[in-house]
Amino acid sequence: MTTWESLYAKRASRMRASEIRELLKLLDRPDVISFAGGIPDPELFPAESFQKAYEEILGGPEAAKALQYGVSEGSLRLRTWIVAHMRELGVDCAPENILITSGSQQALDYLGKLFLSPGDTALVQWPTYLGAVQAFNAYELQFDRLDPGTNRAAADYAKKAEETGGRVKFAYLSPDFANPTGLTVGLEDRHRILALAENLSCAVVEDAPYESLRYDGDAVPPMLALDCQKTGGIENSRTLYCGSFSKSLSPGLRLGWICAASEVISRLVLIKQASDLNTPVLNQDAMARVAEREFAAHTARTNRIYRARRDAMLEALEKHMPEGCRWTRPEGGMFIWVELPAGCDAAELLQSSVERAKVAFVPGRAFHPDGSGANTMRLSFSCADERKIEEGVSRLARLIAETVTSKL
Amino acid sequence: MTTWESLYAKRASRMRASEIRELLKLLDRPDVISFAGGIPDPELFPAESFQKAYEEILGGPEAAKALQYGVSEGSLRLRTWIVAHMRELGVDCAPENILITSGSQQALDYLGKLFLSPGDTALVQWPTYLGAVQAFNAYELQFDRLDPGTNRAAADYAKKAEETGGRVKFAYLSPDFANPTGLTVGLEDRHRILALAENLSCAVVEDAPYESLRYDGDAVPPMLALDCQKTGGIENSRTLYCGSFSKSLSPGLRLGWICAASEVISRLVLIKQASDLNTPVLNQDAMARVAEREFAAHTARTNRIYRARRDAMLEALEKHMPEGCRWTRPEGGMFIWVELPAGCDAAELLQSSVERAKVAFVPGRAFHPDGSGANTMRLSFSCADERKIEEGVSRLARLIAETVTSKL
Repeated sequence: MTTWESLYAKRASRMRASEIRELLKLLDRPDVISFAGGIPDPELFPAESFQKAYEEILGGPEAAKALQYGVSEGSLRLRTWIVAHMRELGVDCAPENILITSGSQQALDYLGKLFLSPGDTALVQWPTYLGAVQAFNAYELQFDRLDPGTNRAAADYAKKAEETGGRVKFAYLSPDFANPTGLTVGLEDRHRILALAENLSCAVVEDAPYESLRYDGDAVPPMLALDCQKTGGIENSRTLYCGSFSKSLSPGLRLGWICAASEVISRLVLIKQASDLNTPVLNQDAMARVAEREFAAHTARTNRIYRARRDAMLEALEKHMPEGCRWTRPEGGMFIWVELPAGCDAAELLQSSVERAKVAFVPGRAFHPDGSGANTMRLSFSCADERKIEEGVSRLARLIAETVTSKL
Repeated sequence: MTTWESLYAKRASRMRASEIRELLKLLDRPDVISFAGGIPDPELFPAESFQKAYEEILGGPEAAKALQYGVSEGSLRLRTWIVAHMRELGVDCAPENILITSGSQQALDYLGKLFLSPGDTALVQWPTYLGAVQAFNAYELQFDRLDPGTNRAAADYAKKAEETGGRVKFAYLSPDFANPTGLTVGLEDRHRILALAENLSCAVVEDAPYESLRYDGDAVPPMLALDCQKTGGIENSRTLYCGSFSKSLSPGLRLGWICAASEVISRLVLIKQASDLNTPVLNQDAMARVAEREFAAHTARTNRIYRARRDAMLEALEKHMPEGCRWTRPEGGMFIWVELPAGCDAAELLQSSVERAKVAFVPGRAFHPDGSGANTMRLSFSCADERKIEEGVSRLARLIAETVTSKL
């Protein structure tokens, strides 16, 4: 059988491997200091709490239920915790506004599946989260650049979308400490994006996996909270909020959620039912127990650690990076975004960086749907301690300085 | 925001709620004897083994790794167990031929995503598994009837597929103790289907969740094993085998797999990466431990129990059902398929059955993509003990007899 390629659906041509996932393999080389993976430090997981939770469930009267099929919308106990969490964020909602997903990555896949016909357009930040590009690509969409700063008119977005035979279905953004830039969208821009979406009669997808990882500065209300204020409540809101436990408690249980108008949730439940029936009840109930007991205390503790690492990386960049480089100063999350002098190619740099400087990072081009951004890179400070950060940035900066000099 | 409907993709119009999933709610009424849910008996889950496995992982040196992101293809330890399992079934394969999925339902979704463009055709048994219809529907396909008994020519299938602007991408079947009929496809028909697929240059999707639940009779080799024999090995084979732990050890961990040529697996890994990154490592490693220790012993034990229930149901049907009813005699699995006299409507019957006879079942129409089969029903014997089976079938048979008489 040599005809597989001829049997694939048209959409398959847009499915490509993630450079980042390939790079994760570099983490296994003990001699390389990795700023590559956008992942939490596994040393910080509340493993004992999870151990206790699984022990309670599997050793108790709930064991059989936890090992059985569950309802597609998710376990009520976990949805109830999330409802309380969303209320703390300013979103008044009920369990019927929550769908449990297998990580927020699955939320993005389902939103693509529900909204995108071939030729439709999604507005995205530039650069944007690579996983969102990959999830949406399966639905053969077009990307256009969401940039509230330019005051580009809604009619212009709409016209461009019509040219590819579709319409703008949603604006996608990660408003807090975005992957890859670390930047936060300010209050004024959030209101502008909501107004733009209203003018385009489209939805807003708010991807908020880093929301609880704020290290300083004042929290900005979620887009969904602002939308509820504006429209009178979640049932009138156009914002689809994607939350996640992956960066706060553990990514390994693959647990995220969508919070939105119940009308949309009921459609997404059908998608969940048809695509994997339900997320494991056992994992949901274990996560509910851990979240109830220590979400606040645990995130406070890990945020102190991540803050120190961010500070160490900013300090090291300041100290070592050659002139002509710029970088972001994130108030939370896991990433600092570096712009090298024009003409530098971060993908080229990566190879010598891993081989000679023994430092890994992610070249920025992958985050640009148009293939631009060759001179950018993403540095993650989440998995290295302060000493390694200082050492790694100093080695990387030396290599960059050499590269810049050799280009002169 | 009142315009959600106008924002949805075209495919959304084909997403409908499952009657069966709604019916699962009836299981919670203690006064109703349910033959409805196609689910394993939760009392039979090896809960202690799972408890031990989670304890070992979360209390040991692997805890941090189990709570972290994992690779999209799945944990090597679990894939290694599956490779040995597939070899026992006559399929010589390696870990790169295995993708771990969140239940075999996710395997069906991914195969639809990889192969089906709008207007393409899948050949399916009639009746067929409802979850497959739901999974494939998202990809806007057509269904045609796979019936090896009719000797319909490949050219005729191909011509019909062209009429809807696509081609036949795969034949989908559940060859062992199928949901909903309980029937097994014989060796000769398996060869015929492989030959038909060869003539159509299409794939074969072999959905085998019940494969290990054989109670008597001789095992028939999987389609994939026959295909490997015929073509010289898995890399030349056109069959995509979907396996599952859901009916053998536990559905709650949501663990299944696809076994196929590595070329297809590598494409499916990209789909997995873009749709939910990976299935939880913790669950995979727990399942690997339980499967290594007691898959054979556990399935032997539960098969004895299910066999007794099947026998009890066949005996009760023989004893109580009125003339004019026919039913299947499955060699394994969970289902008996009943045909009522023509003119009877099983969906109408269900309401009075639940209210008056206090017995639940699934009307058969849902399993027919063309809406036929009104006089059929699926009875599951997996979750009721012999006494309840005798009692439930006797009550149901009395109601059917009354209904048949009133129609005369």
